[in-house]
Amino acid sequence: MHRITAAEAAAYLRECGDAYILIHRAPDGDCIGAGYSLQAVLRQLGKKARVLCADPIPQRFSFLLPEEPEEEFTPDCILSVDVADELLFGELTETYQGRIDLCIDHHISNQLYAERVLLEECAAATCEVLYQVYWEMGITFTEQITKCLYTGMATDTGCFRFANTTPETHSYTAELMRQFPDIRYDLINRAMFTVKTRQQIQAEITMLRNIEYYLDGKCVMLWATHDICSDAGVNIEDMEGLTSLSLQPEGVEVGITVRERKPGEFKISMRSARDINVSALCAKLGGGGHIRAAGCTIKGTVAEVREKLLAIVSGVLS
Amino acid sequence: MHRITAAEAAAYLRECGDAYILIHRAPDGDCIGAGYSLQAVLRQLGKKARVLCADPIPQRFSFLLPEEPEEEFTPDCILSVDVADELLFGELTETYQGRIDLCIDHHISNQLYAERVLLEECAAATCEVLYQVYWEMGITFTEQITKCLYTGMATDTGCFRFANTTPETHSYTAELMRQFPDIRYDLINRAMFTVKTRQQIQAEITMLRNIEYYLDGKCVMLWATHDICSDAGVNIEDMEGLTSLSLQPEGVEVGITVRERKPGEFKISMRSARDINVSALCAKLGGGGHIRAAGCTIKGTVAEVREKLLAIVSGVLS
Repeated sequence: MHRITAAEAAAYLRECGDAYILIHRAPDGDCIGAGYSLQAVLRQLGKKARVLCADPIPQRFSFLLPEEPEEEFTPDCILSVDVADELLFGELTETYQGRIDLCIDHHISNQLYAERVLLEECAAATCEVLYQVYWEMGITFTEQITKCLYTGMATDTGCFRFANTTPETHSYTAELMRQFPDIRYDLINRAMFTVKTRQQIQAEITMLRNIEYYLDGKCVMLWATHDICSDAGVNIEDMEGLTSLSLQPEGVEVGITVRERKPGEFKISMRSARDINVSALCAKLGGGGHIRAAGCTIKGTVAEVREKLLAIVSGVLS
Repeated sequence: MHRITAAEAAAYLRECGDAYILIHRAPDGDCIGAGYSLQAVLRQLGKKARVLCADPIPQRFSFLLPEEPEEEFTPDCILSVDVADELLFGELTETYQGRIDLCIDHHISNQLYAERVLLEECAAATCEVLYQVYWEMGITFTEQITKCLYTGMATDTGCFRFANTTPETHSYTAELMRQFPDIRYDLINRAMFTVKTRQQIQAEITMLRNIEYYLDGKCVMLWATHDICSDAGVNIEDMEGLTSLSLQPEGVEVGITVRERKPGEFKISMRSARDINVSALCAKLGGGGHIRAAGCTIKGTVAEVREKLLAIVSGVLS
């Protein structure tokens, strides 16, 4: 493994042959934008390129996919974008582990598993890293490439809201918008950040109706138990992805979402509104994660889970 | 009245004496950021300056206010920022109408009421216009000025989400962040876009529980009647500012929020998710507004109001 610069990655991509591009399982806006923009760039250079993902691309990202069909071919090289760990290839791990020629990423947790690694830990998104690589390559930014890069940068920063947003996120976005002023960025943002299904709206109501405030409101708990969900007539699966709700109430420092995975086993998602390290709190309960977003699993009754969580959290909040 | 350029406005502000700066009633992030940044800029040049507003500055914007106390003085000139119409001075209108030496604004509806007008209709925010003026003036961008300009641009664009966001919004933001990387922009965004009071959360739940879908889900109606609010134990006043909820459901084109102002009189807020002109729809009901956000008042029973609204909306949606 050796780490390379954006200019070296650009040189490699200019010279490489036909490529497979791996993105992570449970694909999000950044890895989809990174993968499909790179496919478009390589095709622009006359190479064959194909994006591989263990899971299907969610419908709401279909506007980023190319019109040309995927081709069958034998690759000359294998690339990965936005994948911190080969295990995140999902069911493709077995086939491609140890075979990655170039990995481009921004995760500080990157396992440096590839032959060549372009890793920019301070970038908000892999699409931000790729913007520089494409610029070095001197390629033509098309409308599709622009939509991909914009979507990747916007989604990984919560539409430029989170602490990971950099001056470069904004200045690259400005350049993309200048080149393609007619793209409806507002409709991309609407699809990514505003729109909810009726089921999601019901799930949100159900969670917020049972909101619990502790420690002077600094700790908020939201519950998705089988009982709560069946009373409300919502699927417990629809309660996924609602962890950010716990940080809405004014004054909250630690927001906790508890989801009953199976009877008596609870998946805990902990979020920090500002600077409390929830990764350290979850570590005490056998879990881990990032400073502002972490998780763990607790077994017991609802009352026992609540008590364990409050004991841990009150240590840093009172 | 004559319209002037950013360079001319910069020259005027360099030469003007002590100034009153008027902002609009019901102040928002853009007029507050514009007003207090301009006060700081003028003070930097050794002049006295004071921001005047008919309504108090909401608590969540207090981080934009200067530490130095407001002074009493007789102004040499009177400025207005982000005020499209002198009537928006509120109870200050009577005193200052016809006396504005320079107005800086971005509203297309500006009434051109001032002696000199710097109006950039394509700018996302008045703070975006002021960024250019300050740059022309060659002033020192301080931390407070940076926070003011950032907050103005972020709030008027829904954190860079809406169609009014320009490449300049992003590139000026990039420059501000480069100069002051240590400002916690993420905490500003949290305070502006994420945080809700417990009352607001209750009000949202109450509205969403009564959501009505019509015309294949393309029309959504949310109700805040006295009956609904008293059943849920929330104040009808807390239902203000929730009009964006009506655009959350997938597939919605027109979102309508109906608030009972007094028994039998309903205030209608209509929002367009994409391109339907709701200003034209509200005009048919005696109201008006912008293409994507408009309003009107209807008298009658709940059933009558619903019927009138559906008759108007089905004309463009079916």
